Amino acid sequence: MKKPAWVVEKERGKRAEAKETVWLFGLHAVRDALVNPAREKFRLIVTPNALDKIAEAVAMAGLEPEVMDPRKFTAPIDEGSVHQGAALEVRPLNWGKMIDVAVAGAGAPLVVLLDRVTDPHNVGAILRSAEVFGARAVIAPRHHSAPETGALAKTASGALERQPYLRVTNLAEAMEELKDAGYFLIGLDGEAGETLSGALGQAGTRPVGLVLGAEGPGLRERTRTTCDLLARIPYLGAFGSLNVSNAAAVSLYAAANR
Amino acid sequence: MKKPAWVVEKERGKRAEAKETVWLFGLHAVRDALVNPAREKFRLIVTPNALDKIAEAVAMAGLEPEVMDPRKFTAPIDEGSVHQGAALEVRPLNWGKMIDVAVAGAGAPLVVLLDRVTDPHNVGAILRSAEVFGARAVIAPRHHSAPETGALAKTASGALERQPYLRVTNLAEAMEELKDAGYFLIGLDGEAGETLSGALGQAGTRPVGLVLGAEGPGLRERTRTTCDLLARIPYLGAFGSLNVSNAAAVSLYAAANR
Repeated sequence: MKKPAWVVEKERGKRAEAKETVWLFGLHAVRDALVNPAREKFRLIVTPNALDKIAEAVAMAGLEPEVMDPRKFTAPIDEGSVHQGAALEVRPLNWGKMIDVAVAGAGAPLVVLLDRVTDPHNVGAILRSAEVFGARAVIAPRHHSAPETGALAKTASGALERQPYLRVTNLAEAMEELKDAGYFLIGLDGEAGETLSGALGQAGTRPVGLVLGAEGPGLRERTRTTCDLLARIPYLGAFGSLNVSNAAAVSLYAAANR
Repeated sequence: MKKPAWVVEKERGKRAEAKETVWLFGLHAVRDALVNPAREKFRLIVTPNALDKIAEAVAMAGLEPEVMDPRKFTAPIDEGSVHQGAALEVRPLNWGKMIDVAVAGAGAPLVVLLDRVTDPHNVGAILRSAEVFGARAVIAPRHHSAPETGALAKTASGALERQPYLRVTNLAEAMEELKDAGYFLIGLDGEAGETLSGALGQAGTRPVGLVLGAEGPGLRERTRTTCDLLARIPYLGAFGSLNVSNAAAVSLYAAANR
């Protein structure tokens, strides 16, 4: 039986209030979420044109689309977002317990830990790279990190649906759990004496966690001291520094191909 | 003697018409351009607040700033650009002839060639990575590539002032010139049989050019056939692909640390 409108309205308000749902946008991100059976979906707002392009995915999801005139397209997403006429309200994916994914998840025994990386474009690109290099998870603190938003999903280009992005209450505690499970944690730090390849050599055949901080502040003190080893990506130029998503890609490549 | 106003106006119109000048924006990009003696500068538009922050650079450049009320800030830059109250009209840097930079420029005998990579954020990030890994130049066709705009400069985070970004008339001809000069050109291609590290092994101690195409279309046919060898970055995951700036960072790291 269909719920009365006022019940639906009330539930919707509660979800938003509790910030339990997010709006994804863009054809690619919306299509990938629609065909992901693990994804809880609530509302789909589309223009007729966009609906044409993702009709198959909409049918698979069995969700009733709310078709909107492109000139009147309104979805609760950031102004200026390139939505391509499609927005989907979803619940963040539940990947289960961090340690279970790190110990027994799909992919190589390799995880990325992000210490307060808040830019959704950087985190989206890191999820893409993590998937490509077969990492089990990208782990970030629940607060002070990029939430699973539309902008993140769009930059991740589908990887958000497939690559576990795990938010933990306390990053240092999660790091301790990983070390207890056998992980060797390498913190990326431009000032470190050891190089990335040297650090990976020391890790040997152990599972590896790559720990990256935000550009500027870098790793917080407690994060640094919880790492097994700090290492730098060798820079040849005298100036400049890598963008954090590029630093993550380089470290993942080096760790996956050691 | 100061030029009469109408002469200044006329020259300004001509510059803009010939698209010989670009507007950089953002405190970091504007500051870096101001202190770069090789950079020809024309107009500086700043808010009083921004001027405070870059006063030293403005004094060094010896340019008379046009101070503007933040509510009336108008510079010919894209709407929605995060200008931070500073915009600077400049001429693109002249790095001289491509082959001279590739043969005798600063840094390692390593260049990046971009085949129609048009997104300024990607090219900006690639310039940053090229600088970090000591590459001599980033080379792109004059048409169908990202122009030296404010958005590119901002993402490059200073690297645009220091890392040669060379636009050539014909990419395939530039590639032939590089090969004649002794460069070994490796085209990045996800479908290639050879891996990146295998290709770098074949290059031995020769100078290396890394050739990257845009996401989606990849390398054009003539670009592919002009490469000495095609190579792929080994992907462990079954899905996904790297963002082009991440692919560039990984290849530069691998080439610089071979």
